[in-house]
Amino acid sequence: MIILLSKKMGFCLGVKKSIELANKTIKNKNTMIYMYGPIIHNPRIIKDYQKKGVKIINDFSKIPDGSTVITRAHGISPARCMEAKNRKINLIDTTCPNVKKLQKIATYLYEKQYFIIIYGDKNHPEISSVMEMVNHHALIVNQTAEIIDINQKKKIGIISQTTKNMHDFKKMASFLVDKTKELRIFNTICPATMERQESVYDLSKNVDVMVIIGGKNSANTSRLAEICKNQGVKTYHVEEKNQLKRDWFSKNDRVGIGSGASTPDYLTKEIIQQLKEWYL
Amino acid sequence: MIILLSKKMGFCLGVKKSIELANKTIKNKNTMIYMYGPIIHNPRIIKDYQKKGVKIINDFSKIPDGSTVITRAHGISPARCMEAKNRKINLIDTTCPNVKKLQKIATYLYEKQYFIIIYGDKNHPEISSVMEMVNHHALIVNQTAEIIDINQKKKIGIISQTTKNMHDFKKMASFLVDKTKELRIFNTICPATMERQESVYDLSKNVDVMVIIGGKNSANTSRLAEICKNQGVKTYHVEEKNQLKRDWFSKNDRVGIGSGASTPDYLTKEIIQQLKEWYL
Repeated sequence: MIILLSKKMGFCLGVKKSIELANKTIKNKNTMIYMYGPIIHNPRIIKDYQKKGVKIINDFSKIPDGSTVITRAHGISPARCMEAKNRKINLIDTTCPNVKKLQKIATYLYEKQYFIIIYGDKNHPEISSVMEMVNHHALIVNQTAEIIDINQKKKIGIISQTTKNMHDFKKMASFLVDKTKELRIFNTICPATMERQESVYDLSKNVDVMVIIGGKNSANTSRLAEICKNQGVKTYHVEEKNQLKRDWFSKNDRVGIGSGASTPDYLTKEIIQQLKEWYL
Repeated sequence: MIILLSKKMGFCLGVKKSIELANKTIKNKNTMIYMYGPIIHNPRIIKDYQKKGVKIINDFSKIPDGSTVITRAHGISPARCMEAKNRKINLIDTTCPNVKKLQKIATYLYEKQYFIIIYGDKNHPEISSVMEMVNHHALIVNQTAEIIDINQKKKIGIISQTTKNMHDFKKMASFLVDKTKELRIFNTICPATMERQESVYDLSKNVDVMVIIGGKNSANTSRLAEICKNQGVKTYHVEEKNQLKRDWFSKNDRVGIGSGASTPDYLTKEIIQQLKEWYL
């Protein structure tokens, strides 16, 4: 077996910073620390935080005034920030800088009265926070075919969830050019996402099997698996080594390994170790 | 022979207005009338104006102060307007409203410090006037492959000559999405151009031969012929009936007829008449 690693993989700068800030907060506090939803979409990381006594919450109603709450890297809505302020909650904002940029651009387009199209997942927390910022005046789509009822829009602004697929974003842009007088496209797909997508795309051309490591709930990781599958390569998306199955592989396989921006390196190392034990 | 007409063909509103204004000017004046370049790209129309005593000029240096000069539908540069003002030349501005819009958008993008890409023909007078307006700070391209050296441009604005091909404009837009942080696309291809392109595209699917009528120097007409050729249909681009050859056709042909936005209807009628005389 030959194991080949994707050129770009694992934590991006934004996730690294979020995790660092969360760890520092936990280290310096003796009181209970809350986390407003999972800081990143990786079950193992969250389990580890819970073991350290961090409590994951979905709203602020049941925690005492003045509590310390770590927000998620995917952003937090202005309404929640206001609620926290009123309750004197100490928010540790770990929002990724790229998500902040996206929020800022969305607000700008809203103020300038563009018809806003967001390429993203309706239920993703990143998109929920953006939607609150534009007062829910935006069309969220996951593919070009969902762009309907846009006749007579003089100016359209299109933005993307930071972890979406560049190929499809380009297709949407092209589709929209003759549907409006002005089309303003902000490339809000984060560079780390693009790099990871390009890397697994290249790697998947040269292997028999691809293993993509990361949370099943992680948008950016799921996209990597999707890209490999679309290339026609046998692809497995796993979160941890115990999900790996020996009979997925055979002795002479070339195996490609990729991981998402929210996947800690130790999970990848464990999986490589397992493959080596079986086949090398 | 069956002769089928393209759904949209002949003079667009802009050309109609330019010609009306020129005719009115000529009718009401007893002095010499000058024309600054051909008002539209149709040799027969220009010949007819010359027969009426209109003199085509390429610069203002040899005409007397205070002369009356009809400008072309493709626009005139600010420098020439200034020169005319200083020389007390009475400019009859027949610039097409869509070209005026394009000039305005180009100026706006220049002021807002966008890196400007113009999809257009370097030597077309419409593009020359736009280039003067942006102080020659723009990259003019005719196809996506010519878009080079655009690294590190944070914001790019792209506009098109009003008579260009929408299909290629969309391709350029898609290509640029991941080359910059912000891409601003103004759809400056005029609606009449788009309609004529779509009409000949549809028609060319259902005929054996296409005849496109209009000036060889007309950008929008040439594009129509190009579109039909790209569809794999035998296509002839002619200016007048005397350029038509009998052996291009055969008795059982379905013949499609299209014409550009600068082609007067009487030229089309003459050509249809010729075909009828030969084959019906």
